[in-house]
Amino acid sequence: MAENPKLSTENYKGVRDFYPPDMALQKHLWSAMREVAERFGYAEYSASLLEPAELYEVKSGEEIVNEQMYVFTDRGDRRVALRPEMTPTVARMVAAKKRDLSFPLRWYSIANMFRYERPQRGRLREHWQLNADLFGAPGPDAEVEIISLAYRIMQRFGAREEDFTIYINDRESLRETLTGILKSADLLPQALRLLDKKEKITKEEFDREWEKLSERPWEASEEPSERISGLIDALATLGIRNVRYNPELVRGFDYYTGTVFEVFDTDPKNARSLFGGGRYDRLLEMFGQESVPAVGFGMGDVTMRDFLETHSLLPEYRSPTHLFICTVEPTFSLAAQELAQRLRDAGISVAVNLSDRKIGDQIKTADKQRIPFVLCLGENELRDRRYAVKNLSTGEETQLDEGSLPAFVSGHTNN
Amino acid sequence: MAENPKLSTENYKGVRDFYPPDMALQKHLWSAMREVAERFGYAEYSASLLEPAELYEVKSGEEIVNEQMYVFTDRGDRRVALRPEMTPTVARMVAAKKRDLSFPLRWYSIANMFRYERPQRGRLREHWQLNADLFGAPGPDAEVEIISLAYRIMQRFGAREEDFTIYINDRESLRETLTGILKSADLLPQALRLLDKKEKITKEEFDREWEKLSERPWEASEEPSERISGLIDALATLGIRNVRYNPELVRGFDYYTGTVFEVFDTDPKNARSLFGGGRYDRLLEMFGQESVPAVGFGMGDVTMRDFLETHSLLPEYRSPTHLFICTVEPTFSLAAQELAQRLRDAGISVAVNLSDRKIGDQIKTADKQRIPFVLCLGENELRDRRYAVKNLSTGEETQLDEGSLPAFVSGHTNN
Repeated sequence: MAENPKLSTENYKGVRDFYPPDMALQKHLWSAMREVAERFGYAEYSASLLEPAELYEVKSGEEIVNEQMYVFTDRGDRRVALRPEMTPTVARMVAAKKRDLSFPLRWYSIANMFRYERPQRGRLREHWQLNADLFGAPGPDAEVEIISLAYRIMQRFGAREEDFTIYINDRESLRETLTGILKSADLLPQALRLLDKKEKITKEEFDREWEKLSERPWEASEEPSERISGLIDALATLGIRNVRYNPELVRGFDYYTGTVFEVFDTDPKNARSLFGGGRYDRLLEMFGQESVPAVGFGMGDVTMRDFLETHSLLPEYRSPTHLFICTVEPTFSLAAQELAQRLRDAGISVAVNLSDRKIGDQIKTADKQRIPFVLCLGENELRDRRYAVKNLSTGEETQLDEGSLPAFVSGHTNN
Repeated sequence: MAENPKLSTENYKGVRDFYPPDMALQKHLWSAMREVAERFGYAEYSASLLEPAELYEVKSGEEIVNEQMYVFTDRGDRRVALRPEMTPTVARMVAAKKRDLSFPLRWYSIANMFRYERPQRGRLREHWQLNADLFGAPGPDAEVEIISLAYRIMQRFGAREEDFTIYINDRESLRETLTGILKSADLLPQALRLLDKKEKITKEEFDREWEKLSERPWEASEEPSERISGLIDALATLGIRNVRYNPELVRGFDYYTGTVFEVFDTDPKNARSLFGGGRYDRLLEMFGQESVPAVGFGMGDVTMRDFLETHSLLPEYRSPTHLFICTVEPTFSLAAQELAQRLRDAGISVAVNLSDRKIGDQIKTADKQRIPFVLCLGENELRDRRYAVKNLSTGEETQLDEGSLPAFVSGHTNN
């Protein structure tokens, strides 16, 4: 193989490799999201990353389709996209089996998405996202539930009320306000996009752009609509008090039709939108179907990791392995596997030495891999089935027979 | 939106949508694989589906690179592949951090892969696969461990010894045998590929092709090498007795260097290879590095689902939701959410009614979604905090106060 050119070990630009400690963090995020979503009665679904490109060309924001989407043509001349978001997929799945499904439908997924963008903090080309959606419930109690779900996930991660703010707005009433003051109703999409980026541009830039759209100055309505104020009150009844009306909140996607919400980190170091969602009652119409009211949100892993890091809420890495069995002689390797299997059957995770290195070096390997306990297998241990189990963080040794070993070890580890 | 053309609800050809019952099966597969892999001390890693295309051009089988791989060019003129298998990725990750990692390294992942092929039973364009790999252990005890791990996963799924056979061979000794009888050493890759498809073609076709490669007839060696017979004995000591020597076993990939194994269903209805693996000691050399001995296997979801279905080992679908709260009046919706949240905090999964339908219809929805328990919330329940909890499969009603409800419900469901 010497003739082959040396390959790079670098991965594709803007995506991540997950080494075990990184993966443990992903699993931490996902298991918290899963746990809370299922507590709320949401069932997990999934779909392929590949979708027909047409799916995104009708209703997503223009920027996404034109510049930010991965699209290619397959060998059968089909235009294929790597999904940039989950909502069109879940809408497609609901539309495909609408008659067999019973509503309201509570669904969630944890899936990856791709966007072709310049990698930067909080924005990568691939990210993973929880999507939770509630189909078939038109009333404000659906928004109450979906925002509660988002809040309880934040709480499950250890975030306190003061660590984040939930901004909400009614895009329907924003649309009405704008329609009343724009030079022409056709300018509505442009006006929404301008408001969406208002916080990212200067006041001068905003005013210059606004003048093209309207002859009257932009004034946000200070009073929320009845639906929004009712929503804020209902959430307060459920103990959720960090919800604020924001009359300029838009959210990027074209398909939102009513309430929109966005969760912001309150820490100035990470002052950005963490995630959001809203009501999209008309999306199923693109499949030629009667509409199904829907409300949902997407919560991405990259921004959530930044948030949890900023607030010191990320857990420490722990090895999934509880115990490492060292062997005094290489000939004990098979006996070590036999012992390991008996202990695995009793419910603990066990790795065995496979090298001919000295005991000291075997223990070092276990320690470097952050395995909390070791035992050494030799003649006496094989005969007596009693083992000196060493805790690598305290150095303490405990004599245990085989029957009591699993409970001892799992009692001292939390996974 | 009426002006938009009607979009199809079909997904991309050869990939799957996972509705909640399908997803529950995937989760069943994955959690069993995870549980056993972690019991063996394997840590989970992952990586992006997108890889630089070069990664596959050096060492995978020719057919895969030329005809079966999804490759496209991104906007930055990089050639990108959707990974067709996990081994090059894990080799890349190990090579990239070789100095920081401590060996032997036990890693696993559960990830999706793409191959451009004609969809058929057991072969789709996208499938999910467990990959388990052990790096840094050159001795046969590494093969003992990796085959034990594969066996224990089968056992965890409920498969019995007689349901499957593990065939093993030593590709190194097969290579030696072939080199001795081929017209030229250059013909070795062709000879391996011919043997690999021997079972799928007629004897005449095989003989015709073989004559091009050798002047002597093909005769498989009846006696396994010492390494292989030692391996069979060691596995028997660990209680694994369905391992057979197969002198014609090759496995498709070019990178295998020693022991290869393949697991077959013994049921004639599904008589095909379920999954397999082997030793690939030289793969890291393609990154210009010193070799690291490695042995591993990949177990795909599509073939495993077929196997479990054939042997009636698939579990029945259960809703993740334990309890549905019906509301006598729509005005009780918020009170229902409050009750639901208290019960969620106590550890059960609860969905609430959000419709203004009659109680009977609300219960029907719960039943259709296979939620096992319902309760109806009205004036009395709100006042007394006592509820008539109905088991929808037996029709039985039990009067419970709020404190005893969660334990009752979770005691009657297993998830």
